[in-house]
Amino acid sequence: MPINQQILLDNRPVGPALASNFKLVSSQTPALHDRQVLVRHKFLSLDPYMRGRMNESKSYAAAQPLGEVMIGGTVGEVVESRHPQFTPGDQVVGMGGWQEYSVVNADQPGVLRKVDTTHIPLSAYLGAVGMPGVTAWYGLVKIIEPQAGETMVVSAATGAVGSAFAALAKARGCRVVGIAGGPQKCQYAVEELGFDACIDYKLYQDAHALSKALKVACPDGIDGYFENVGGMVLDAVLIRMNAFGRIAVCGMIAGYDGAPLPLNYPALILVNRLKVQGFIVSEHMAVWPEALKELGTLVATGKLRPRESVAEGIASVPEAFLGMLKGKNFGKQLVKLS
Amino acid sequence: MPINQQILLDNRPVGPALASNFKLVSSQTPALHDRQVLVRHKFLSLDPYMRGRMNESKSYAAAQPLGEVMIGGTVGEVVESRHPQFTPGDQVVGMGGWQEYSVVNADQPGVLRKVDTTHIPLSAYLGAVGMPGVTAWYGLVKIIEPQAGETMVVSAATGAVGSAFAALAKARGCRVVGIAGGPQKCQYAVEELGFDACIDYKLYQDAHALSKALKVACPDGIDGYFENVGGMVLDAVLIRMNAFGRIAVCGMIAGYDGAPLPLNYPALILVNRLKVQGFIVSEHMAVWPEALKELGTLVATGKLRPRESVAEGIASVPEAFLGMLKGKNFGKQLVKLS
Repeated sequence: MPINQQILLDNRPVGPALASNFKLVSSQTPALHDRQVLVRHKFLSLDPYMRGRMNESKSYAAAQPLGEVMIGGTVGEVVESRHPQFTPGDQVVGMGGWQEYSVVNADQPGVLRKVDTTHIPLSAYLGAVGMPGVTAWYGLVKIIEPQAGETMVVSAATGAVGSAFAALAKARGCRVVGIAGGPQKCQYAVEELGFDACIDYKLYQDAHALSKALKVACPDGIDGYFENVGGMVLDAVLIRMNAFGRIAVCGMIAGYDGAPLPLNYPALILVNRLKVQGFIVSEHMAVWPEALKELGTLVATGKLRPRESVAEGIASVPEAFLGMLKGKNFGKQLVKLS
Repeated sequence: MPINQQILLDNRPVGPALASNFKLVSSQTPALHDRQVLVRHKFLSLDPYMRGRMNESKSYAAAQPLGEVMIGGTVGEVVESRHPQFTPGDQVVGMGGWQEYSVVNADQPGVLRKVDTTHIPLSAYLGAVGMPGVTAWYGLVKIIEPQAGETMVVSAATGAVGSAFAALAKARGCRVVGIAGGPQKCQYAVEELGFDACIDYKLYQDAHALSKALKVACPDGIDGYFENVGGMVLDAVLIRMNAFGRIAVCGMIAGYDGAPLPLNYPALILVNRLKVQGFIVSEHMAVWPEALKELGTLVATGKLRPRESVAEGIASVPEAFLGMLKGKNFGKQLVKLS
């Protein structure tokens, strides 16, 4: 039985998350019971929502229990199976968490899914053809409901969600403008991800300055906004929203550490008759097949080629995770396990 | 031809609105052209939206032009008609503005409507069976979409919108909790308007204190909120919203004077997957017949008996209007003209 290195949540952050909140431990993988499957993880997914889970409460999801393996999406290969639907060698996606191996009770619906890696790389099932992609799809299709010719804006534009959002919105005939941190990300957004324009928010000191840049990039105003960050960026976008605009609120990463994050111009919701709606994609499982089908086609046909930031080895997970929270990643943050 | 006293917007407010922003003038009513109607106003309606119209721009509606009669709803009696569908003696509702008489081009659809005063008092067409009533109806029925057993909250609870909201929500099997200023208004809300509870926001110094009172009044949390005021009250309600709650944003009277009005906990929109939507009822004319039918029935059957604050005479309009903006009115603010 192989040795399994795992990362546990050891204690909760007070303010920013720290590497010392986590603990690396090792144990042997247990013998399988009937209908269980042993998966060797090839990639771990690191996502902003995990930061929310680290807090005691008030997050939008259940808190991550202390002393247990950190939650997270994984792709890997079946190495042992006592379940008739899985065979060693199967490529699978699941929620194995921050560890090298997971034992899966494969009878639970949706807990482990075999995937085709002929046309789609395995790691994409953690990004464009996984939870982040479906997140972009749900916010765009079900909340923003775009019309051809409208202008869509997304923050964290080069991330897994932002890049999928751009491809989905372009496919619907929209102008798509990104907001990202730094000239490299902005250049990449336009040259590789299909954005019509991308604004480097780090160049602007306050919401009003950023909103002027948005006015240039969005000469017809903003009809739909996909919110990943909150804070100054949300204020700046609100100032440029058109009447009857729609804002899908998926994340407010700027406030995950508990810093106050006020919205300075809520009256604009009334003035412009906006709809602002929060959502969590895991509560809308019914749309996943439709969304994954479109996203898989976009990836397989080369219309969505999201970038990945890949750290190596289980020990690198905490640092890679904390870096992602600060925007140090460039594209979907993964950890590759050998 | 009778003398017509009129109130014009003379200059725009800098900060709070003042009586000196208005000017009272007199003129003779002009001779009627073909298909025109002369209406003698019996009641003028004073509504918070008028404050927004006084500003240069950035309001949700076109600015009121300087030097013209202030906009506003009116009920009155036809005194002269050169239109075949109107006869002297007809009781009518229209948008005659802050003046004693109006000349109406009666061919324009919807500009003048004959009303039945057998079962419904004429003044109610400016309140419960008029724009404020339809405003409550639209926010409740089309944005909040209440389910029986859910808890609804409305601010400015004893006003024209709030009282209609309560009757409409009770008719749908909801618990209805009001927020109002002062013990008299709160007592009236519970004893006369059918609220299950009403909270006097003036007793609480900040959003957290008010939210504790809301917790007591709303033991199952808040599913729907109809926002008339903004500021601290909105923050307090947000803290108590249930998952998948809906907020209809109709007014933010607290911010009409230009004071900053930040929303301190926008992350709750995400945490609780809320929908926050602004609207202006005049953009949804298609629903008015359905809404007015229900509201008229509620008034005619005594299930909605909203209170009115009635000032007397055209010269009293500015003071009555400014008082309403500060919450000095108790129920729908009207001005009666002799």
